[in-house]
Amino acid sequence: MSKNAVVLLSGGMDSATVLAMATAAGHRCHALSFRYGQRHSAELDAAQRIARQFAVEQHRIIDLDLAGIGGSALTDSRIDVPETPADGVPVTYVPARNTVFLSIALAWAEVLGAADIYIGVNAVDFSGYPDCRPGFIEAFETMANLATKAGVEGQSIRINTPLIQLSKAEIIRQGIALGIDYRDTVSCYQANAEGRACGKCDACRLRRAGFEAAGVADATCYVE
Amino acid sequence: MSKNAVVLLSGGMDSATVLAMATAAGHRCHALSFRYGQRHSAELDAAQRIARQFAVEQHRIIDLDLAGIGGSALTDSRIDVPETPADGVPVTYVPARNTVFLSIALAWAEVLGAADIYIGVNAVDFSGYPDCRPGFIEAFETMANLATKAGVEGQSIRINTPLIQLSKAEIIRQGIALGIDYRDTVSCYQANAEGRACGKCDACRLRRAGFEAAGVADATCYVE
Repeated sequence: MSKNAVVLLSGGMDSATVLAMATAAGHRCHALSFRYGQRHSAELDAAQRIARQFAVEQHRIIDLDLAGIGGSALTDSRIDVPETPADGVPVTYVPARNTVFLSIALAWAEVLGAADIYIGVNAVDFSGYPDCRPGFIEAFETMANLATKAGVEGQSIRINTPLIQLSKAEIIRQGIALGIDYRDTVSCYQANAEGRACGKCDACRLRRAGFEAAGVADATCYVE
Repeated sequence: MSKNAVVLLSGGMDSATVLAMATAAGHRCHALSFRYGQRHSAELDAAQRIARQFAVEQHRIIDLDLAGIGGSALTDSRIDVPETPADGVPVTYVPARNTVFLSIALAWAEVLGAADIYIGVNAVDFSGYPDCRPGFIEAFETMANLATKAGVEGQSIRINTPLIQLSKAEIIRQGIALGIDYRDTVSCYQANAEGRACGKCDACRLRRAGFEAAGVADATCYVE
């Protein structure tokens, strides 16, 4: 089976760590990012820096107009990014985003003959986002094996989620051990054009708490 | 539950028939098409004509660069469209296309609060294309209900495939009864700019045989 892997790379700390892990596992990594109508392009700049650092085979940025569909604070500028935590599915949830991203990763994996897809979903997120839960990932993998030529021919596609049971602190410690400089990553939902983080949104709060819990200096450039 | 439905509309005869059926079932239909790097735009012109005819609530055409991923005769001009039938998965198979299209339909359904997604997969196709088989559709539906807010909140998403067990002849007879003029549809894999069909590819062959079996005059404009 091919050692090619498709790695979803947003430019945030989780997907950067996943790329480091997939590389360390000996895969030839094909990084996949999306210009999907997100509020800022700083995370795509970050994705490009990280892809270069880990010398991926290819890095594709696919244009996909999820903003035309709307329904999320991350793609609709009329919905504010919340700066205090709330119950339930957050408004920063982008409808079916991981399903869409994994589907396109699956298409590319099929063309490459890659058996492995990597995605940086993790435990801290899946309380709020339905498409970060283990049950979703398992169902996607089952579907993927019925959807594809590889599946028909008895090979199988694996959806790898090495972070799914890790805390942010564990992610950070493992990433640092694998050589990631988290200053190159952007997690903030509303980073400015230079990639500076707001320090207030859920993504910033989780990231800051992760560095504290890991006992590591916070490698984030904040606006203030 | 909302009567909104998302209907995947390629501009071919199958998806046109599905739109007619979803409309007849009382849904407020939201038609979804893709500019995904296919060889010709005649089928999108057809999709627009059909969407108008059935007075859909909205018709969205999403740009999505599957040609950048390649791997199919339908999106890669270096691979010829075959003009004789072959065994196995045809080269016109677009990797994971239905998975990608259904995923984006799912995203839109979630924004609309729609419980129903319609797709025109059918029995004639699923011998060759893995993502037209009933097992795939069931697995996608299971995944969709784990992927979405609606699923988390106990509602459910249905993937409707009213053509899945129909022959082309049955599709044509039902479509005509629902008022479709199949001259408005384009099935050919390599139609010219005016939407005229080659008469030679698999899609043309299946369509012509369907009209013959239905005992209906072939409503196709051929190049010759």
